[in-house]
Amino acid sequence: MPSDELERLLAWVRERSPRRVLLQAPPGLTKVAREAARALGEMGVEVVVSGGMCWGGCDLALREAAELGCDAIVHVGHAEFVRSPSIPVFYLEHRYQNYEPVASLLPEMLKALEGYRRVGLGATVQYLDLLGRLAEDLRRAGHVVMIGRPSNHLRYSGQVLGCDYSTMTSLDGEVDAHLVFGSVFHGLGLALISRKEVFAADPHSQKVVPLRETAEKVLRKRYAQILAFRSCRRVGVVVSVKPGQRYFGLARWLVGLLRGRGFDAELVVVDEVRAEDLEGRYEALVNTACPRLSVEDQDRFRVPVLLPGEVMVALGLTSWEELLRRGFLSSYPQSWVMESWTSSALPESTSPSEV
Amino acid sequence: MPSDELERLLAWVRERSPRRVLLQAPPGLTKVAREAARALGEMGVEVVVSGGMCWGGCDLALREAAELGCDAIVHVGHAEFVRSPSIPVFYLEHRYQNYEPVASLLPEMLKALEGYRRVGLGATVQYLDLLGRLAEDLRRAGHVVMIGRPSNHLRYSGQVLGCDYSTMTSLDGEVDAHLVFGSVFHGLGLALISRKEVFAADPHSQKVVPLRETAEKVLRKRYAQILAFRSCRRVGVVVSVKPGQRYFGLARWLVGLLRGRGFDAELVVVDEVRAEDLEGRYEALVNTACPRLSVEDQDRFRVPVLLPGEVMVALGLTSWEELLRRGFLSSYPQSWVMESWTSSALPESTSPSEV
Repeated sequence: MPSDELERLLAWVRERSPRRVLLQAPPGLTKVAREAARALGEMGVEVVVSGGMCWGGCDLALREAAELGCDAIVHVGHAEFVRSPSIPVFYLEHRYQNYEPVASLLPEMLKALEGYRRVGLGATVQYLDLLGRLAEDLRRAGHVVMIGRPSNHLRYSGQVLGCDYSTMTSLDGEVDAHLVFGSVFHGLGLALISRKEVFAADPHSQKVVPLRETAEKVLRKRYAQILAFRSCRRVGVVVSVKPGQRYFGLARWLVGLLRGRGFDAELVVVDEVRAEDLEGRYEALVNTACPRLSVEDQDRFRVPVLLPGEVMVALGLTSWEELLRRGFLSSYPQSWVMESWTSSALPESTSPSEV
Repeated sequence: MPSDELERLLAWVRERSPRRVLLQAPPGLTKVAREAARALGEMGVEVVVSGGMCWGGCDLALREAAELGCDAIVHVGHAEFVRSPSIPVFYLEHRYQNYEPVASLLPEMLKALEGYRRVGLGATVQYLDLLGRLAEDLRRAGHVVMIGRPSNHLRYSGQVLGCDYSTMTSLDGEVDAHLVFGSVFHGLGLALISRKEVFAADPHSQKVVPLRETAEKVLRKRYAQILAFRSCRRVGVVVSVKPGQRYFGLARWLVGLLRGRGFDAELVVVDEVRAEDLEGRYEALVNTACPRLSVEDQDRFRVPVLLPGEVMVALGLTSWEELLRRGFLSSYPQSWVMESWTSSALPESTSPSEV
């Protein structure tokens, strides 16, 4: 881990003097978490490690921390997502400083981008410190490179999340293609809502993957799930308690909407959305938790797992084309879903975050 | 569902007038939950269904209820376990009234009990209302039948839980065999801590199963895991946030004890204890959550998942025989584990429930 990140953490700890810290990291960063744990332990701070999965900055272990009397959280690998959490959080973003994996992929990237002059550039938080140098290298090869400003859930220029690509989609009208440096997962997320070609430059596989075609396939599969949903009756509308995935107002509104259309709809609360817990109980699910679930995990479920916007299409309240135009993953929590149909279909006045 | 249970629920709701209720049921009782949901809905109560697993009365969805603004919980299928929960809880125990499945198993039970004159009798909460009549039938056939009084986590005479058999073990010295009416799972739990033969009379399979031998096999497997633990170094001591499984003081104490013995021990907090989240990060786990996990789910893990008492054996602080005498599942949270070694090994003063 870059020593200045650890230094920043230790300075933060010295300033706040927490007695007991909850340490949370995604599986790929266990080693970084272990280093942080050691350093904290040496400072006399008691460390409790979160043993659950950690899907993103939305998945902040606030409950575990509160229930075990932790007075701070150290969250590894993600940028801030949840605003004003109930417990102080230090985000150890773990940004790579070594340009080598980028440099070695450069020829591949340039080859992929042939014919695309104007390029939108983005990266997951780990690679953000290398993005400026990558932009320079692409420019030197003749490209016009654009890096978008943060909005929505994003904190940094050029940053992407699995559910938020606003830094890049804001450039959609100005670029010929996008390049996401990080993972195929993130590249695919952008390809699902952008109309331009998207390349994922994956430093682990050292491959550059075009994703337009894959995205079209995913979208066709999504449309099939929407059609399947129409013949279901018993529907579970899922709301998660994860701090950054909790859209209770939206979920309640959808329950009312579905009931009004003759569905036997139930509001279902979960932490993780898991097929083994849910699919036997419902003929279809509506997912207001992580939007990527409906894309990445649909195959794990034997029942349709629709996003709020997809429900609107299933009910004939909007068209598939309009959903694509809006970006069926983007602008989560899809407040436009509610805004657009509030006048006609709203069973009661709620906002997505209201309890 | 027996209509008087539903009536009791509705009376409770009329008295408390909750606005929004969280409804929680184990998978096998989805139908009962649905009936309750319908009745609550008709009374104008908003129902939020818990979509996670529900492992017992220990697994009370207090957090989900609090975070979604529910002012009451209806918990189906289990008796009270957590004392003084933070939100009012109605336990819809769902007791069967139909004696038919018991009567049809009676010949099998009598056959199994041949040669065992004095019999300890117990059942899971669903079958408790039928226990008196079963005792009568066994007595009529010449048995001396004993039903133990509740203590520990148990609320009713003759009741058993997966982690508490004190109603029956209290009779161990007076009976020739035990009969658990309910499931092989519960029968096995008793067989692991009783020295008498244990029969499970399972109404679903309509079979009566002797469990002494199976229990001996499980115990030999547990001993092998204890031996395997000794050569591990990186150990995760797991504490769960489930309301009735949270033994933080015990977990912290074990971390200190293990560190003092040269183990690289970490305190790990989880909701569910899941192999996929944990086993890659540790060479061994210590489980202070549900004790049945170490028995039923050991095969899912590639690493030893020891109970606190088993750790004592691994460290040479007690003998396997002494652990069996104490009952390696019983008296959970195994406060005796701490009490017995506090003087020598305690790193700091904590109690099992202390945060």
